Formats: sequence, structure tokens, C-alpha cells
Amino acid sequence: MPRIAVDAMGGDNAPIAIVSGSMEAAKKGIPIVLFGKKEQLLTICSMINPSWQTTLPISIVDCPDIISMDAISMRQIINQKTSSMYLAVDALKKNTVVACVSAGNSAAMHTLANVIIGRIPGVLRAALASVLPSVTECPIYCVDLGANTDCKAVFLEQFAHMAAIYVKEMFDIEKPRVGLLSNGHEPYKGSSLVKETYQKLAESNLHFIGNIEARDIFDGHADILVCDGFAGNVMLKTAQGTLKAILHMLAHEANKSLFAKIALKISSPIFSKVKSKLDYAKSGGALLLGIRKPVFIAHGSSNSKAIENAILFAHNLANNYRLEKINNSIEKLFKKETSCMSTSNQLAQENVY
Amino acid sequence: MPRIAVDAMGGDNAPIAIVSGSMEAAKKGIPIVLFGKKEQLLTICSMINPSWQTTLPISIVDCPDIISMDAISMRQIINQKTSSMYLAVDALKKNTVVACVSAGNSAAMHTLANVIIGRIPGVLRAALASVLPSVTECPIYCVDLGANTDCKAVFLEQFAHMAAIYVKEMFDIEKPRVGLLSNGHEPYKGSSLVKETYQKLAESNLHFIGNIEARDIFDGHADILVCDGFAGNVMLKTAQGTLKAILHMLAHEANKSLFAKIALKISSPIFSKVKSKLDYAKSGGALLLGIRKPVFIAHGSSNSKAIENAILFAHNLANNYRLEKINNSIEKLFKKETSCMSTSNQLAQENVY
Repeated sequence: MPRIAVDAMGGDNAPIAIVSGSMEAAKKGIPIVLFGKKEQLLTICSMINPSWQTTLPISIVDCPDIISMDAISMRQIINQKTSSMYLAVDALKKNTVVACVSAGNSAAMHTLANVIIGRIPGVLRAALASVLPSVTECPIYCVDLGANTDCKAVFLEQFAHMAAIYVKEMFDIEKPRVGLLSNGHEPYKGSSLVKETYQKLAESNLHFIGNIEARDIFDGHADILVCDGFAGNVMLKTAQGTLKAILHMLAHEANKSLFAKIALKISSPIFSKVKSKLDYAKSGGALLLGIRKPVFIAHGSSNSKAIENAILFAHNLANNYRLEKINNSIEKLFKKETSCMSTSNQLAQENVY
Repeated sequence: MPRIAVDAMGGDNAPIAIVSGSMEAAKKGIPIVLFGKKEQLLTICSMINPSWQTTLPISIVDCPDIISMDAISMRQIINQKTSSMYLAVDALKKNTVVACVSAGNSAAMHTLANVIIGRIPGVLRAALASVLPSVTECPIYCVDLGANTDCKAVFLEQFAHMAAIYVKEMFDIEKPRVGLLSNGHEPYKGSSLVKETYQKLAESNLHFIGNIEARDIFDGHADILVCDGFAGNVMLKTAQGTLKAILHMLAHEANKSLFAKIALKISSPIFSKVKSKLDYAKSGGALLLGIRKPVFIAHGSSNSKAIENAILFAHNLANNYRLEKINNSIEKLFKKETSCMSTSNQLAQENVY
């Protein structure tokens, strides 16, 4: 069975949580290649499961370097050719693995995916895309969640098209409803970027339902939510921060009286269910939508469960040709657009990587 | 006692909730002038309290027009000189009232405040500023929450300075800690706007503590959070949306079993406390920081409690010369800066209103 590359050194809880999550995925039969400091990884693997070498489909590729969370220069990231992240992405390029997962420096992963693997022809920017929970049964697919902090309207228009193709294939929704994150639902609300994007989406053949206020994102009105990576990141992390604050406040109240402690103890199973619905760990990391091959960025603070889910998600998407089908549709759409649209020159100019 | 102007026709729940909130504030002895359709307001007042004319310090100014939530052109807003919002702001200019409150179209209110009242000399943009709750005792003062969707670094730098003066006066914090909303805490993270602002704040005499991720906004690490109006609005509304989603999910779980229903019923007083801490209605509206006189924008979906709180807040800030003191300090600081900084030409050019 094709293997998944895991950057074992990336993330706040690396390497222990990454190895542990990888071992859980391996138990489910998914072959894993861990990229990182071999001696350290061997020790952790043996501590978690002494018989792993004979029972689990895990191999290790020794990588002397680690891309730190502080690595800022693109040149620095690209030139460090023996980092765990570089070698994991490179293995994907060379087809020794079918997908790559990292919880490390997301900007570095974005850069390496662009430089080593490359984007689908016609794609101006790859975007970080993931599912957010909603109060209905239908989740909302958000793009971009942080890969592109400075965007143009033409990027957001492409994000919408890519996401529509993805949602159609993955969730079987023929014409997904596309919403645009804004500071008001009225068509005239928004930054100049949002206003320009609004026009483009309104004129497109997408099922565009207009602006969506951040207050209504969980209501399930849209299947896709389009935003620039800065706003998307603020939205995602505010939701996490609010949940964290509520749990903190409840714990604080529980400490004030025995009644409160007992009351909260009784309702804790209900809380756990709600918490689990909003838990980013369950989403299994975000896909770099627009990259030629499956590259996944897990949350920097991923625990082992989040890593396991990211690997399961990567395995599912890489092994049944679904992402290949999605990417082919994206290429076909943008090729058609590039050849007939006025944006063709712009498309060519925008290929900055 | 000086009076507060209230735009009775602005907001999703106008005029009933606005009148009702105003009457509650009037009961506490605050004289109110309601601006709106006189016949309608007389009817509502009498329905709520038949003896209001003899017992409450409320008067009504008849205004034939209403600025709708869809009013988009600045010219349209400024030219409608008999709208309730226009006349309320105009009364503030003419000193017949000491502060003005509206839950109507916030962009229109921002425009009218700029055009009719004007900004403090040296201020490039007025910003919507309000307190967010935190898990500590210390609240966080956020600026901008939606007045300026397209910002320059020099605006954000000014927001930080104005907020620092406000927080020093209002919360008695000598050197408030200033954080910058970004997509990562590392100094190199952020959009180009955030990166440029980071440099300016780092070089300023403010107590700048660096970037703050949206996940950590409620942790109480900063006294002030600076952001552009688009990101600030997304942050504020995502927090509201997350709370709404959690409450919805809990109600949904409660419907699934008798045990869940009883458990949640028992813990409902604890929830109410937490909900109340996160309730925007308690914040009492946002101040347009940088405008010469006290103009307050309450949330569009304000209920009567939110309006009452906004009026109490306006009364408090207008009647003890605290805002006057704050505004004088802002004027003094920016006058000094304009005369000695390289931004002086820019400052002059930026006065677009």
C-alpha cells in the first residue's frame, strides 16, 4: 500500500505527539515514513511500542536538520535540503510516498510545496482549505485559512472555484453555495478586496450567495466560505479562542461552589460532545488546495489524535484518486479560463514562485 | 443635567427596543432626546409607560426620514438632513446634547460623525473602539472593530496611541500593553499591513508586546488589541458566532435525552454567568475614538438592555469630562507628532473627509 510521509520534527509537540499519532495510523494499516532525527525517533517508537519494528508498517528517513518555527527567509527554507520537512516534500515529488503531512512551520511548508511540487497549471496561489463545523449536519469548507495573508480578488475568485470542485467531489454537492466572508451581509459591505471579489463571484457561474458575516459562519447557510488567509486565520483562531475562554470560565465557576462543581460534572458528557464537534483535531489538518500533489498542514499545536486524523485524511484523499480527479478538474477549468479570459496575462504574471 | 441624543429609528429592533432601553436609562435620571418619527415614538412610549411624560426626562424631536441599512453613498447620507441619525448628530454639534447614540447603519454614523462633528486635529481616521471580555479580571480594549475596512499602517499606529491614552484615563493603567492582531505571534508573521504596523509600534514609545494570535485574545496578555476594522469585525463576530453555535449545540443535545435536559437545566445558572461575561450588550456600544465629541455606535441587533447600557456609558463618558481629557491628550500628542515627524505631509494628505 502506498506510503504517507510525515515530518516527525514539525509542530509544538514534536516529535513525541507526531510519532505517537503516526503509530496509531500505522496500526490501522497505513504505511508511514517518518522524516526526522533517526536516533531520537527510534527511541520514541520503541518507548511507545517495543515491538513496532516487527508489527507496524513504519520506516524512518534520517534528516539531520529541522526547519524552525522562526525560519523566515524563503531562501533559508529552500536551501536547507536536509531538513525533515524538505526531505518529506521531496519524497512526495519523487513518488516514494503518495502524500505528505507536517505540523511544522506552515509558511515553510507552503513555500516547499510550491517550489518542490508546484501548483496545478493556471493556479495563481495555493490555499489552505479545511472544513469548519456548523450547527447543521452540513460542514462548511473554508478557504483560505492562512496560506496567503495578502490577496488579490483574482486569487479569492480562484479559491472559490477550486473549493467548489473539491466540495462537489468530496461531499457530492452539485452546485455548492459559495459565501464571501465580510463585515456585513449587505453587498456593499467589505474591504476593497472583498468588494472586488464580490463582483467577480457575482459574475461567475458559481452558486454565489453573497457576503456572510463571521457571526453566521456556523449556521450552515453556505457550503463554502471564501476569505483571504489573514481573515480566515483570525476567524479560525477566534473560534478556538472563544471555546477555550468558555471552558476556562466554566472551570473557574466550578471552583466557586460545590453546587457548580457537581452541576458541571453532571453535564460534562454533553460538553464533551459539543467540544468534540468544534475540535480542530478532528478536521485532520488542512489541504494545500492548488498544489499538484497531496500536501497537508496540521495545526502547529496538534496532539497525537490530530496527527493520526491528518494521516487518515491524507491516506483517504491520496489513495482513491479523488484528489487527482479534483486537481484534473481544476487544471481543466483554469486552462479554459486562461485561454479565453482577459485575465490570461495577469495569470502569467502572477506565477511568482 | 445634560441630555443624550438617541437615534430611535436605527437598528434591527428599532424603534421599540431603542425606546424601551432609553426609558430604562431615563428611569435612572439620564435626560434623553429621542430622534425619530414623533407619532410612532409617542405611541411606543405611552404603551411602555403611560405616565412617561410626567415621570421621565424624555423629549422627542420629530424626524421625517430614516437612514436605511442599505444607504451606501456618502452623498446620500449627508444630504438627507432630516433623517433621525443626521439630526441626532447635528444636535451634538449644536451642543443641545452632550453625546449621541445610534444602533443604525454604522458606516452612515461614521460618515456623519466625521462630516458634522469632525475629527480631533491630527487624527487620520476615527476608529470603533470597545472592550472585549477576557478570562482574567482585566478586559481588553480593541480598536478598530469595523469603522475602517481598508487601513494603512499609520492609521493603526494612531489607533494604538489613541487607545493607550483612553485606557490610561479610563482604566488607570499607566503604560497599557499594546498587542497587534496577527496570524502568528512571531514578529515576521502577518499581512504586509501588519508587518509595517509592527515596525512602527516597535519603534514607538508605547508598551508594545508584539503580535497576538486570535486564539489568545481572551487570555488577558494585552490591555489593547490593535487591528484594522475588517479583521476586528471578523474577530468580534466570530466570537459571538461561536458562543451562539455552542448554545445551539447544547440545546440540541438537551433535546436528545431527559438526562441531558436535566443536566443542562442544573448547570444553566453557571452558563448564564459565562454568557453574560461574553455578552456584547454589556459593553454598551463602541465609541468612535478620534471624533471631537462623544459618538457611540451600538450593535445593529441591540436589544433594549444594550441600548440602555450604551446610554449609561455615553452619559458616564460625556458628563465627567473624561472623554474631553482624553481628546485633549490625543490632540496634544498628534500636534507634537505632526510638527516634528516625517509623517506630517502624509497626515495632511490623509484628511479625506
